Amino acid sequence: MIMNQPIRIAIVGYGNLGRGVEAAVARCPDMSLSAIYSRRPAASIQTLFGNAPVYEMEALNGRANETDVFVLCGGSKEDLPRQGPQLAALGNTVDSFDTHARIAEYFSAMDEAARAAGHTSIISVGWDPGLFSIHRVLGEAFLPDGDTYTFWGKGVSQGHSDALRRVEGVADGVQYTVPIERAIEQVRSGARPRFSPRQMHRRECFVVLKDGANADAVRQAIVSMPHYFDEYETVVTIVDARTLDAEHRGMAHGGFVIRSGRTGSDHEQRLELGLSASSNPELTSSILVAYARAAVRLHRMGKIGAHSVFDVAPGWLSLKSNEQLRAEWL
Amino acid sequence: MIMNQPIRIAIVGYGNLGRGVEAAVARCPDMSLSAIYSRRPAASIQTLFGNAPVYEMEALNGRANETDVFVLCGGSKEDLPRQGPQLAALGNTVDSFDTHARIAEYFSAMDEAARAAGHTSIISVGWDPGLFSIHRVLGEAFLPDGDTYTFWGKGVSQGHSDALRRVEGVADGVQYTVPIERAIEQVRSGARPRFSPRQMHRRECFVVLKDGANADAVRQAIVSMPHYFDEYETVVTIVDARTLDAEHRGMAHGGFVIRSGRTGSDHEQRLELGLSASSNPELTSSILVAYARAAVRLHRMGKIGAHSVFDVAPGWLSLKSNEQLRAEWL
Repeated sequence: MIMNQPIRIAIVGYGNLGRGVEAAVARCPDMSLSAIYSRRPAASIQTLFGNAPVYEMEALNGRANETDVFVLCGGSKEDLPRQGPQLAALGNTVDSFDTHARIAEYFSAMDEAARAAGHTSIISVGWDPGLFSIHRVLGEAFLPDGDTYTFWGKGVSQGHSDALRRVEGVADGVQYTVPIERAIEQVRSGARPRFSPRQMHRRECFVVLKDGANADAVRQAIVSMPHYFDEYETVVTIVDARTLDAEHRGMAHGGFVIRSGRTGSDHEQRLELGLSASSNPELTSSILVAYARAAVRLHRMGKIGAHSVFDVAPGWLSLKSNEQLRAEWL
Repeated sequence: MIMNQPIRIAIVGYGNLGRGVEAAVARCPDMSLSAIYSRRPAASIQTLFGNAPVYEMEALNGRANETDVFVLCGGSKEDLPRQGPQLAALGNTVDSFDTHARIAEYFSAMDEAARAAGHTSIISVGWDPGLFSIHRVLGEAFLPDGDTYTFWGKGVSQGHSDALRRVEGVADGVQYTVPIERAIEQVRSGARPRFSPRQMHRRECFVVLKDGANADAVRQAIVSMPHYFDEYETVVTIVDARTLDAEHRGMAHGGFVIRSGRTGSDHEQRLELGLSASSNPELTSSILVAYARAAVRLHRMGKIGAHSVFDVAPGWLSLKSNEQLRAEWL
């Protein structure tokens, strides 16, 4: 599926994810970067390569026809629910929407906006949701008599770090989600255990206190926070701001999706996807860019409206032709 | 994508793979088994569940309209190149054709036969080719600056075992492909090594001699066999027939596909798919059955001709609706 013209990508939102997209597009010979849109003043923005114009968001309406697909790099909480449908009305989009509880609602809003305008959107792209989701669906389809386990980490959870920072007395903080090795081993053994949340993951918090805050009170407020921490073994370590910056700003992450099941009378089968990312946002960006390619193809096939990774065949993600893929990778 | 009528599956070829398909269909509430076709006399065949009629191959022509998709369970070397196009002319098919060097030729023959008759075929389905192939394409699409490594085993290679048994003086034999642990560790380290074949896999052969055969001559003939063994560290162990049957008839297999790459300036990323199967043919069968479901869907979408796993979106493999998949697995 070689394209005659490069796919013109625009980045909407220029934080870690947006910079990752800029770097990923530079590695794709079938793509060019048409624009970077930001909420910040365009003049204040230093891009990685400086080879695409930077505009403020307001310029987007008048420039949509310069772009084949918008890669939405805003946050799932504040930005995407508002920006997503607006952008889907202007062109094809891909995004990494990851608020699981609101996916159905977001999908509907994107589907409606994209259909009305004749555009194609792929939502919730990245490694989880995204690559891990694909593996969960394949695992269930291939081993219907089985159980699926997802382990995350060790890596920083933004949602849990945000929750930490909302605790009274906390000036700053970082939360690592840590998979429990013994649980992974149990799953690998084929035992198909039933786990409570605390049996699968541990939560490690590094917290900087505000002046005069009481360490014990902060600790207690964190470990008892419903949903986020109370169901887990949570370890809170008080550090100073310098230590937090020096030791806890890394963006590594990882995880496993394991499908453990049986076939025939009693044959154990295990499919395990493991991921180790030294930069979580850059991995998500790289996956977004491959799905941007797929979004353009879906659009050319006449598939308008919202889609998820479940609607995208593997070959549509590659810049190689089907014939070449069969020769090289089948 | 709930179907109103069960998908009617027919098994063509009733060996290990065929029996695995019979067991896998029984686990799929959206499928029914319409027939089992075999080259052996129908009366001589004892099926697992006895709930589908058994016919000899000759009956197939007159009964094709009782089936929505034929699952071809013959061998890649002798059976599929001949049977595949014949069956594709009669109905939709899935198969596990795995002779890599002849995939392009087989794809063409299947595509021509299926197109002429308005049917849909999915070729080369299973774990490798199949699931591993998908992971190789995703890995390259997500991490274009990277290297892909496939390790197989420990498990029996049929092709290499067949090669063993053709050696003069060999009465029977089994060959295990064994991945070299140190090589896997090097890949996981992010070093992106270049390997020769012998650095990735070792070959362990268990051989029963014919009466009067010379053990040293047999050993020498095996380890020097071009392509199959000469490029590897090959260990030949002479055993008696009873030991071979007691200890080397297991069907476990496994392997890894690892994509190791970089994003941004220098961030290492690793995507690793691991598989552990206690029954290699049953895992392949279970995957074939999921793709049988996809073949029927492709056909209903009007996608006729031959396809590979690269043309099949993950959601088409599942009996669940897209909405349900998004709610449960995204």
